[in-house]
Amino acid sequence: MIDINAEIGRLDFQREPKGLYEPIGYTLSGGGKRVRPTLALTACRLFGGREEAALPAALALEVFHNFTLLHDDLMDKADTRRGRQTVWKKWNANTAVLSGDQMLIEAYKLLAQLPADKLAQVLPLFNRMASEICEGQQLDMDFEGRKLTEVQLADYMEMIRLKTSVLLATALQIGALIANADEAAQAALYQYGIKVGLAFQIQDDLLDCFGDAATFGKPIGGDILEGKKTYMLLTAYQKGGEAFRMQLDALRTAMPADKISNVCALYERLGVRACAEDAIQSLTQEAIDCLNAVPENGATDELRALAEKLAKRAK
Amino acid sequence: MIDINAEIGRLDFQREPKGLYEPIGYTLSGGGKRVRPTLALTACRLFGGREEAALPAALALEVFHNFTLLHDDLMDKADTRRGRQTVWKKWNANTAVLSGDQMLIEAYKLLAQLPADKLAQVLPLFNRMASEICEGQQLDMDFEGRKLTEVQLADYMEMIRLKTSVLLATALQIGALIANADEAAQAALYQYGIKVGLAFQIQDDLLDCFGDAATFGKPIGGDILEGKKTYMLLTAYQKGGEAFRMQLDALRTAMPADKISNVCALYERLGVRACAEDAIQSLTQEAIDCLNAVPENGATDELRALAEKLAKRAK
Repeated sequence: MIDINAEIGRLDFQREPKGLYEPIGYTLSGGGKRVRPTLALTACRLFGGREEAALPAALALEVFHNFTLLHDDLMDKADTRRGRQTVWKKWNANTAVLSGDQMLIEAYKLLAQLPADKLAQVLPLFNRMASEICEGQQLDMDFEGRKLTEVQLADYMEMIRLKTSVLLATALQIGALIANADEAAQAALYQYGIKVGLAFQIQDDLLDCFGDAATFGKPIGGDILEGKKTYMLLTAYQKGGEAFRMQLDALRTAMPADKISNVCALYERLGVRACAEDAIQSLTQEAIDCLNAVPENGATDELRALAEKLAKRAK
Repeated sequence: MIDINAEIGRLDFQREPKGLYEPIGYTLSGGGKRVRPTLALTACRLFGGREEAALPAALALEVFHNFTLLHDDLMDKADTRRGRQTVWKKWNANTAVLSGDQMLIEAYKLLAQLPADKLAQVLPLFNRMASEICEGQQLDMDFEGRKLTEVQLADYMEMIRLKTSVLLATALQIGALIANADEAAQAALYQYGIKVGLAFQIQDDLLDCFGDAATFGKPIGGDILEGKKTYMLLTAYQKGGEAFRMQLDALRTAMPADKISNVCALYERLGVRACAEDAIQSLTQEAIDCLNAVPENGATDELRALAEKLAKRAK
């Protein structure tokens, strides 16, 4: 099996001008779970394809993902990512803009290594996914400017579908396509990716409130302090209505630790925690059910295990 | 013949979320000479191809070009472009980042409309060009941070080759490739584009000093006041050395109008003006000579006329 980290390490960004390429190498060396390229390779194996055939696309997906993080961190003014300074913070905003652009182009350079017939099929899928991610980021930014009363839970689900799920789903579909899977099987795997992505994001929102700080990787309560419109907050408003909104408003001037513990208690009382846990459980099951439409082999086991692992993450 | 402005107008950016797509439509409706798509279509006709076959690539090149302007204006903090507010100024910096990203993706969506065999040939050319433009922009930003004594004229020529020429050259090559021109003819047309681009940029630098404000489209002397490392400034330093640098330094605190007229007088006296005029003349002739290696028809006449027009622009 291909060692995806080794392959990413083999990409050469020791090029001139340094100001352009160094931040790309820095970003890609930051680690991460390499979930997207792994999904592409696994999907390829699932349909009897050689992993090597899917490698250019797998690498393109990982480079693209890291490009979105680089530009998102600039737009969100995030100082750190995976325990290191973000590019705009370590260099400057212009570097983040231009090296990010170059990184997006690098993703397309990797795609261009596919054979002509596959390229013609993969490029439209990749492009649609890339646009959807931008749309998701735009919706996310739009939400932050709106009042709690103006964002529906359904809007949020659509936003996380675009921002998180379609990249996982497209990675799987592309891997399957390269192994010549038929369209129905590609669609089933795509749906598996959508469900897993939604479950993952809701789990992330849940862990921000009820996770274990030691394993979550971010401080608990960050979303609460930022007032982020998460699954938790929107569900609480859906269930608690104006009464909840006023309780939340009363906590506006509370000390951070108090605000976090009080909001979490409200979530617990309103049944938001149970609701999130149920949603994660259902989505995980639906994801696993999608696998009934694809061949059954070691790769299928891996995808099932992945869905279950995400659902149980740091609970 | 295809009406390129009408085709650009037909691209649909009336999509949701508005915050993402509106700035793209705004940018593309800003006008401009549409030189790049026109070159692609002309090159296609030159080799007996149907313009329609090159249209997706021609549009991709224009969308890409406008994407670079959008992000460059953000990085340069330019307030206006073609007499209108730039995107980051009219909206904000985050909008400029994200809508620019989406615009780059739109360029690739247009390319994806090419037939599979052409796509596989065009994509690598497009990608190489896109990277070179980013490299050119990086070099341009690097130069601004360096002293006059640290930038050579040759470095500047390489920067403008990357930032201006390769897009014109690649537009021509792609048009030729789509019409099945052989590699030697593609290479000749590419070189024509490189020379025309260099001549154009030197002409732009010359006109900043000796142009007619009414026809130039920008205020005269802008580069001088900004201290930009142009062909004029670098040639003056090459010819005048330390003596010139000290004369320039003495003008640091002069009134803007005085500074412009004095620097222009220095350029005249050092023979920089004549040097720029000669360079434009030679590059134009070299560009026209490249056309000896391609078929002779109406399209060739158009390319010859374009090279001559650029060289005579607003002189």
